[in-house]
Amino acid sequence: MHKEYPWIHPVLICIIIAAIAFALFNFGNVKRILVGRPMRSRELNQPHMKLTWLIALPILAADLYSSVAYGPEAGITELAHLGVKAKWMIIPITSSTVILLTFLIVSYIMGVIAYPTGGGAYAIAKDNFKKPVVSLIAASALLVDYVLTVAVSVSSGIQTMASSYPILVRHETLLSILCIFIILLINLRGVSESAKVFAYPTFIFMACMILLIVAGFVDEFRHGFVQPVTPPFGTIPQGLTTMLLLKAFSSACSSLTGIETISNAVPVFREGKNGAIKAYIALGTITGVTLLGFAYHLYVKGISVNPNNTMLSQLAGLYFGHGLMYQIIIIFTFVVLILAANSTFTGFPQLAALLAHDRFLPRALALRGDRLGYSNGMIVLSALAALLIEIFHAQTNALIPLYAIGVFMAFTIAQLGLTKRWFKIKGKLWHVKAAVNAFGALVTALVAIIFAVTKFTGGAWIVLIALPVLIFCAMKIRKHYEDVADELRIDLKTVHPQTHRILSVVLVSGIHRIVVDTISFAQSSSQDVIALYIGFDDESIERMEQKWKAWGSPCRLVTIKSEYRSLLHPLSKFIRRLENYEGGKPDHIQLLIAQFVPKKWWHHILHNQTSLLIRAWMLRHKDVVVSTVPYHLRH
Amino acid sequence: MHKEYPWIHPVLICIIIAAIAFALFNFGNVKRILVGRPMRSRELNQPHMKLTWLIALPILAADLYSSVAYGPEAGITELAHLGVKAKWMIIPITSSTVILLTFLIVSYIMGVIAYPTGGGAYAIAKDNFKKPVVSLIAASALLVDYVLTVAVSVSSGIQTMASSYPILVRHETLLSILCIFIILLINLRGVSESAKVFAYPTFIFMACMILLIVAGFVDEFRHGFVQPVTPPFGTIPQGLTTMLLLKAFSSACSSLTGIETISNAVPVFREGKNGAIKAYIALGTITGVTLLGFAYHLYVKGISVNPNNTMLSQLAGLYFGHGLMYQIIIIFTFVVLILAANSTFTGFPQLAALLAHDRFLPRALALRGDRLGYSNGMIVLSALAALLIEIFHAQTNALIPLYAIGVFMAFTIAQLGLTKRWFKIKGKLWHVKAAVNAFGALVTALVAIIFAVTKFTGGAWIVLIALPVLIFCAMKIRKHYEDVADELRIDLKTVHPQTHRILSVVLVSGIHRIVVDTISFAQSSSQDVIALYIGFDDESIERMEQKWKAWGSPCRLVTIKSEYRSLLHPLSKFIRRLENYEGGKPDHIQLLIAQFVPKKWWHHILHNQTSLLIRAWMLRHKDVVVSTVPYHLRH
Repeated sequence: MHKEYPWIHPVLICIIIAAIAFALFNFGNVKRILVGRPMRSRELNQPHMKLTWLIALPILAADLYSSVAYGPEAGITELAHLGVKAKWMIIPITSSTVILLTFLIVSYIMGVIAYPTGGGAYAIAKDNFKKPVVSLIAASALLVDYVLTVAVSVSSGIQTMASSYPILVRHETLLSILCIFIILLINLRGVSESAKVFAYPTFIFMACMILLIVAGFVDEFRHGFVQPVTPPFGTIPQGLTTMLLLKAFSSACSSLTGIETISNAVPVFREGKNGAIKAYIALGTITGVTLLGFAYHLYVKGISVNPNNTMLSQLAGLYFGHGLMYQIIIIFTFVVLILAANSTFTGFPQLAALLAHDRFLPRALALRGDRLGYSNGMIVLSALAALLIEIFHAQTNALIPLYAIGVFMAFTIAQLGLTKRWFKIKGKLWHVKAAVNAFGALVTALVAIIFAVTKFTGGAWIVLIALPVLIFCAMKIRKHYEDVADELRIDLKTVHPQTHRILSVVLVSGIHRIVVDTISFAQSSSQDVIALYIGFDDESIERMEQKWKAWGSPCRLVTIKSEYRSLLHPLSKFIRRLENYEGGKPDHIQLLIAQFVPKKWWHHILHNQTSLLIRAWMLRHKDVVVSTVPYHLRH
Repeated sequence: MHKEYPWIHPVLICIIIAAIAFALFNFGNVKRILVGRPMRSRELNQPHMKLTWLIALPILAADLYSSVAYGPEAGITELAHLGVKAKWMIIPITSSTVILLTFLIVSYIMGVIAYPTGGGAYAIAKDNFKKPVVSLIAASALLVDYVLTVAVSVSSGIQTMASSYPILVRHETLLSILCIFIILLINLRGVSESAKVFAYPTFIFMACMILLIVAGFVDEFRHGFVQPVTPPFGTIPQGLTTMLLLKAFSSACSSLTGIETISNAVPVFREGKNGAIKAYIALGTITGVTLLGFAYHLYVKGISVNPNNTMLSQLAGLYFGHGLMYQIIIIFTFVVLILAANSTFTGFPQLAALLAHDRFLPRALALRGDRLGYSNGMIVLSALAALLIEIFHAQTNALIPLYAIGVFMAFTIAQLGLTKRWFKIKGKLWHVKAAVNAFGALVTALVAIIFAVTKFTGGAWIVLIALPVLIFCAMKIRKHYEDVADELRIDLKTVHPQTHRILSVVLVSGIHRIVVDTISFAQSSSQDVIALYIGFDDESIERMEQKWKAWGSPCRLVTIKSEYRSLLHPLSKFIRRLENYEGGKPDHIQLLIAQFVPKKWWHHILHNQTSLLIRAWMLRHKDVVVSTVPYHLRH
């Protein structure tokens, strides 16, 4: 499908998203229905909007925990071509990722202690490094990463479904994008609502995974821990290079992304930082257990990689057949992967708003929408993710290299920031803290480098290009805002408004009710008024001038003949003449344009919309005040 | 290709056409390059723009003459399933169409004599029937028909090419639409230019057809007039019903469409009506001869219908092999079919402009473009034709039923109009004239009915629905324009502009240079000025009020707290309050909005475009004069 038209979907999707977004943010009614009633600003800090850690956990956990569904698989896939002999390596690889996980959890908990207001890499970096560029690296790495999280989670969610419902295979891209769109809608309804919607599936998924692991052990108690299908352990397959091993390791690390989420969202916890810490510990434990157990059973059953059937689905199939239990596992894997995507819909917009507030991104991203979420950020996020999915045709593995590199760069910076902080503020046990973070920084930096190297050709280069570009743009934007601010700043003591001489030009197309209104307004708002008539031939000009006399020339009439039947050119020429008018140059030129406001929408095509064109052009090119006098047609 | 995605092309094509059209009519430069320098209105009536009949002939002939390429084929196709025995019927069928042709030519010549200013069905009907509906039937029938002419000619042109260059087959739709677009561009350059471009190919095509016929006779002199391949003559194949015969006849009649063109374009002839008459006679003769000869040879060679290889290409292949001569014939068939489409680019816009001038269609269609052609009409025409081709996947035969029915309805009305006229004005030989036209009317009416009946299920119903709809719309539009005119009409004696009391409301977002400008302007244009500040929280409002005092309150400041972070709603509520203000209700409310005009295009996304939204909304819903004070950023 998309193989044939790789370039068609993004077009359509973007149109759709843009259209809907526009609808959402311009037409009250559509918006009400889809997004719900607007909420008062003060509702933001009401306790009922905050969450107990047990509810917050699954919501913020989805991102990290869901990745157990593809992490080990991603790792071992790199070694698949080495055959059966390499299968056992899934265990050491997964274990090492779990060790890394532990480090990260610990150091993030320390991050939370240090920044209870909810920091995350950007805040930490900003607080500890003078140069904005450092924090920008962290921020843009995270932004890129959030987008990738959405793309990877959703598309691998769809893949999971497709691996058990093959009918979906042909439509993965489209489905993924639909999912993103639905998530967007739900999130536009606001954080807390979405929270309650999203808490339980993650629990169920966790339960499923535990159940799967238990089932595995039961099976092994019955059929032995080494089964006929179990591949040999500890053999070194030939063709195994360190590079390859690192590659496998770094791919497996992609299941560690999403730890960030909790530390960003500390304010969401009703119990404050303690809630966050509880959540971190619980999350770390369960994730580690699941990863190890899952990997172990995969090894025992000698599951091999199959692009059309995820390892999870294979294992579940082995233990439960393809009955209800299997279906449940698959469906909740899907759901939780979707929720993973969903969790970034809190992270990305918040970070974007932070940046926008620091004037590194367009102001619009810092405005809260009707439902107190940063709507624009959400829309941007979904649009980008959809585009990415389209480009990669919903092939998760293609996205993973892009994916984890950003996270680990952010990790490193955060860790360094914390280390620096401990050195600054000292406090009890500061050496330990500093050591932990320093080591954390070292490890994550290593992983990041491993990624950059091993996956460079695999797509990592995209990130390595994207980041500098992003940072450059951010700097430019900041510069622009500052320049504008300087330009607009005035001294309240000295600068005061004073009255000017205004020259009003009224565009007239004849003599009728609208012209009367417009001229009345012009004459009441300024002393010198000129009526300007632009005709296409001498006759019409002749006629106009006579009619004008007959009307008793209420003001000076200037007629111009436009031989090329264009209004804009003669008009702008006329304005130029006024501007360079010797002596009595007016301080302000006001151009008055009457505009039809028809009753029915389809009447618009019956009336020339030239007034719109003229207004747009004038504002763009001339220093002219354009006043539009509406005339509401009764018919 | 389009089989799989029937819905994709129209979208893209419309986007493209819209985009280009926009480009053409908004960006001087693009326009200049593609459309050429603008022309002064008076260039319109300069003699050098007119054409001698010998040049005019091929241009206006293309429509009629080109249809010889598919007319006979369309006819015999209906009988194809009756087998060899039915082949001979191509001769009687074609002959009867030629007879009909003669009648039409004669009666159109009389039309030209009656309306030397160039009438065509609409003008004739309008002149002779009180009720506008009659002339509207003719007009809309013709409009529909022009669109179909473009679609049919272009797509059958492409089919001809495809039948000899099979590589094109898969892309017929796209190619057809490209052709239309190119024709559009050429026509936007203006009539006379296109004329000179287009005269010669038609000549060459005529030559080719004559040559083909001569070649046929040569061949028959050498191999006998009855050849082994010649099917039996005069046998009545079983399964032949009158209905079927009528169907075949009416399909064949589709080669008679386009006679209208000349009589519409009389003013184009330098010799006036005599030129037109000469052209008609010449055209009638050559078309008749070609049709008969072509049909005869098709019979002798026993050519049978083949959807992938037009009969013309088969016959040409037989006589000339697939060498150069064959190629030339094919290519010029293609070219002339394209020209047929082109010729309607004069007809449609002129008719549309006529209707628009009579206020039956949007005014915009009556405006001449830069190059004196009715550009908008041309764009509408091409868009519709492109859409039609897309829907029917460039399958000419599917379009033909839609096609001829409109023409013949128009024919009939024109004939009736003329008959009526002869009765009114009498004059010498008026009985004869009246008789001829009356008979013409009868015949064409019959053909129209035959079409409607035989092709009803085949698609004729579309036309029979489209027409009433079109007429209804036309009436509605006329009504609207008249109502508006009444509403706007004033008595020059009594109604004069008078000065009012203006209340100006300035939207302020803080205190800075732009605000100073705007307030200065407001104060110089009206006595009472209110500065309106809409804040999202109490702090910001507090701050604003203090700053304002510190600034020495140049005018009254009103602050509103928008709990929903929306500007529009509090603003409109405020305006409503002003409107219903006790006692001192102002005659005019002026809303002043400052608008950033950034230097670089990408700066737009850095500044909220809310001002645009507010302006649009206000003009639409309130009776408020909206003045936009531009501020051109230096950065």
